[in-house]
Amino acid sequence: MTGLSKKLLDQFVACVGADHVLTGSDDLSHYTNENRGIYHGKTPLVLKPGSTQEVAAIIKLAAETKTAIVPQGGHTGHVGGAVPDEKGNQIVVSMERMNRIRKVDIDGNAMMVEAGVILEAIQIEAEEHGKLFPLTLASQGSCQIGGNIATNAGGTGVIAYGNMRDQVLGLEVVLPSGKILDGLRSLHKDNTGYDLKNLFIGSEGTLGIITACVLKLRPKPRGKAVALAGLSSPEHALKLYALARERGEGMLTACELMPDLALQCTLRNIEGNRAPLEGNHAWYVLMEISSNRSEEDAQNSLENILQEGLQEKLVGDAAIAQTLEQQQALWRIRETVPLAQKQEGGSIKHDVAVPVHRVPEFLKRAGAIIKREMPDARIYSFGHLGDGNIHYNISQPIDGDKEVFLAHRQEINDLIHDLVIEMEGSVSAEHGIGRLKRDLLARTKSPVELQLMKQLKTTLDPNGIMNPGKVV
Amino acid sequence: MTGLSKKLLDQFVACVGADHVLTGSDDLSHYTNENRGIYHGKTPLVLKPGSTQEVAAIIKLAAETKTAIVPQGGHTGHVGGAVPDEKGNQIVVSMERMNRIRKVDIDGNAMMVEAGVILEAIQIEAEEHGKLFPLTLASQGSCQIGGNIATNAGGTGVIAYGNMRDQVLGLEVVLPSGKILDGLRSLHKDNTGYDLKNLFIGSEGTLGIITACVLKLRPKPRGKAVALAGLSSPEHALKLYALARERGEGMLTACELMPDLALQCTLRNIEGNRAPLEGNHAWYVLMEISSNRSEEDAQNSLENILQEGLQEKLVGDAAIAQTLEQQQALWRIRETVPLAQKQEGGSIKHDVAVPVHRVPEFLKRAGAIIKREMPDARIYSFGHLGDGNIHYNISQPIDGDKEVFLAHRQEINDLIHDLVIEMEGSVSAEHGIGRLKRDLLARTKSPVELQLMKQLKTTLDPNGIMNPGKVV
Repeated sequence: MTGLSKKLLDQFVACVGADHVLTGSDDLSHYTNENRGIYHGKTPLVLKPGSTQEVAAIIKLAAETKTAIVPQGGHTGHVGGAVPDEKGNQIVVSMERMNRIRKVDIDGNAMMVEAGVILEAIQIEAEEHGKLFPLTLASQGSCQIGGNIATNAGGTGVIAYGNMRDQVLGLEVVLPSGKILDGLRSLHKDNTGYDLKNLFIGSEGTLGIITACVLKLRPKPRGKAVALAGLSSPEHALKLYALARERGEGMLTACELMPDLALQCTLRNIEGNRAPLEGNHAWYVLMEISSNRSEEDAQNSLENILQEGLQEKLVGDAAIAQTLEQQQALWRIRETVPLAQKQEGGSIKHDVAVPVHRVPEFLKRAGAIIKREMPDARIYSFGHLGDGNIHYNISQPIDGDKEVFLAHRQEINDLIHDLVIEMEGSVSAEHGIGRLKRDLLARTKSPVELQLMKQLKTTLDPNGIMNPGKVV
Repeated sequence: MTGLSKKLLDQFVACVGADHVLTGSDDLSHYTNENRGIYHGKTPLVLKPGSTQEVAAIIKLAAETKTAIVPQGGHTGHVGGAVPDEKGNQIVVSMERMNRIRKVDIDGNAMMVEAGVILEAIQIEAEEHGKLFPLTLASQGSCQIGGNIATNAGGTGVIAYGNMRDQVLGLEVVLPSGKILDGLRSLHKDNTGYDLKNLFIGSEGTLGIITACVLKLRPKPRGKAVALAGLSSPEHALKLYALARERGEGMLTACELMPDLALQCTLRNIEGNRAPLEGNHAWYVLMEISSNRSEEDAQNSLENILQEGLQEKLVGDAAIAQTLEQQQALWRIRETVPLAQKQEGGSIKHDVAVPVHRVPEFLKRAGAIIKREMPDARIYSFGHLGDGNIHYNISQPIDGDKEVFLAHRQEINDLIHDLVIEMEGSVSAEHGIGRLKRDLLARTKSPVELQLMKQLKTTLDPNGIMNPGKVV
């Protein structure tokens, strides 16, 4: 079953203590199965270190014995980046026990936490101190901050606050040699040498294991306003976005796009979701404005934007939430699209980005491709309009055969990704490369870029022990 | 004079054409002398390429012949990062001819420019299109964007908009092999592989030559308000900053600190500068608020902050500029501090950062050191309070001997930097490492960090031809 000797496995167990290990006699499916069911890996051992020193001991042993290590956070990724392969020789290191908030520094607007802390716990901790930690994801109740950093997670707040990359002041990383890189600084400015931090952010566990970090905190907005606007086209949505960005008096903290099909899908499949607007619109924009002043100010700002949008005939109709419950109800419609779509059978998914102003062109051209290739398939293209990031998901035809539909996955992926590459876009806007898109990376990067990435991997991890088979 | 053969030099000349070359028979002092007069280098050749391909040809030849190359932008740096050494074997590549704005993309909020474009030209171009390019530096009339990127430049806008690093969407770089890395993307989200871009930003020409970039543009604020507040201590200044950050209704776009000594120095030495407040205060804060709404809104927001500051006895007195001219006059006081200080004789300088909330503690402890070591020296500690970045400059005693004073430079540098290191700060917050702080880097970084930086250098530049003797 495994090529690793009993003696070696015992040595790994000794790094963390037998109480903090799962073995073949335990149910390991949580650690070995990928989210969407695409990969089913095997592992002889899941190690759960409780400290940076224990992680360093594990990696040192792995380096000496050339044993492959798969770091794992909350296991909520979409590209198979955190699962071991099928051979059963890769050891999983789960960061779940390193879940301490080490320090909250209110005056310094910084928080030091370990890699295994759940994202939502960080949001709540910040809020309790009157601050904002702005990263917001569908999986925030179970994803871990170490995984968020390793994958440079995105989500709905990127438009105002940036990706995960923009939330990190300092990092502690165990390198593939087992040495500890202590960069837990809380400086807002530091121009001393090469930027090591950003090399690890987004490297998906292939250059080391992130064990702790210092996060940036922001002032908590005093008010928020949320609306859903119905529109006739992505072109109008883009103009509404530009208007909100240029004329918005508050901060535009979300600008999410979805087609009517997606709205109908959540109404059909998710209990409690209700149509916010009368009549049908081809497209919808969920817009959120935050204000440092007051609820009323956020509300006024959003009303002004939508009023102008109505006057300029960009917006057909709009509903502004009047209570916190109504805000949550609008957000729930947007957030439950992937879950609702799951009820509609097989799905071929893409996480792509194009330059923001080319989103309508992308939707038109991609739509023409799908119409030509699979005329009955249903296009659930939703996502973060303000970032140019579209989750271009295609559901199987109603009453069609799931397996027949999914057999076209590669072919459809190739066509959509070719279009994205031609449009100077990204074939993975926020989910990363992992195992799923590794071959794609070679197609989308120039030989010079790809070679440099491989050189960096070899320099940092000459034995190839860190998350092998992922990214490069 | 030079160890490079005539034949080799001719080959380099052929890369750009004889019209675009300066040689030993020309006055090369602009290219070989460092700003502050600390270094006086020599070079046999200044090459001025006009295209990325010409840069690539130069570097390819340099790689084949192991010839050292010193990339040079506007030559406004403070750490000797862009000057050749004294031996006369390093060839200067000046980017001044690559000064085209290639594309302004209004809808996409992006601008593609070549490395040699002057920062101010970019600011003006953005403004003419109704946008903001927020990087703001004292040397903006002569520094080049390529140098700004290579050094990850800072300045007064960092508090709101981030460093240079945060303004870059894409980069084109000629690698030390002569190969061109084309990363001129204008995507706001792209999670495909390692973050190569940030590796080059701040690497000070030691990992390649930046030839072009795509810059992020922002909405141009509709209004700005500027005030100078007099305060009794850095503690009060810090509290005023926190108040502005948390309660500010507009955007806090500058929060600059200076002691009375610095104010008096600019009044004494700079023609046209006038005291903005009656009476004396130990410290001053220049605060700027920007608003997406209107001039009036920015003004009201700033007034509210200062009003609260007065009520809470943080602020002794304040002057709010009522006209654009008055705003410029307040800014001129702050911006002319270094120039004014130059009139006061020899100066021992530091560009340091500490965690923002520890700035008062740093000033107290550093002040005690200087008082102990050189009781008559004058401390001009000014800078970017909101970033924790202090230019801790010390002028010689009045009527003292300049050379005697400057003989203590190393000793004083060591004491101040030791304090900064103990306080978990940065010994180069925004000026970089260059040649001046290279030895210091080894003292401030852990062996693990330093080794990794050296490994990266060796991986990218195995022949050590790119800006040798700088950074690592």
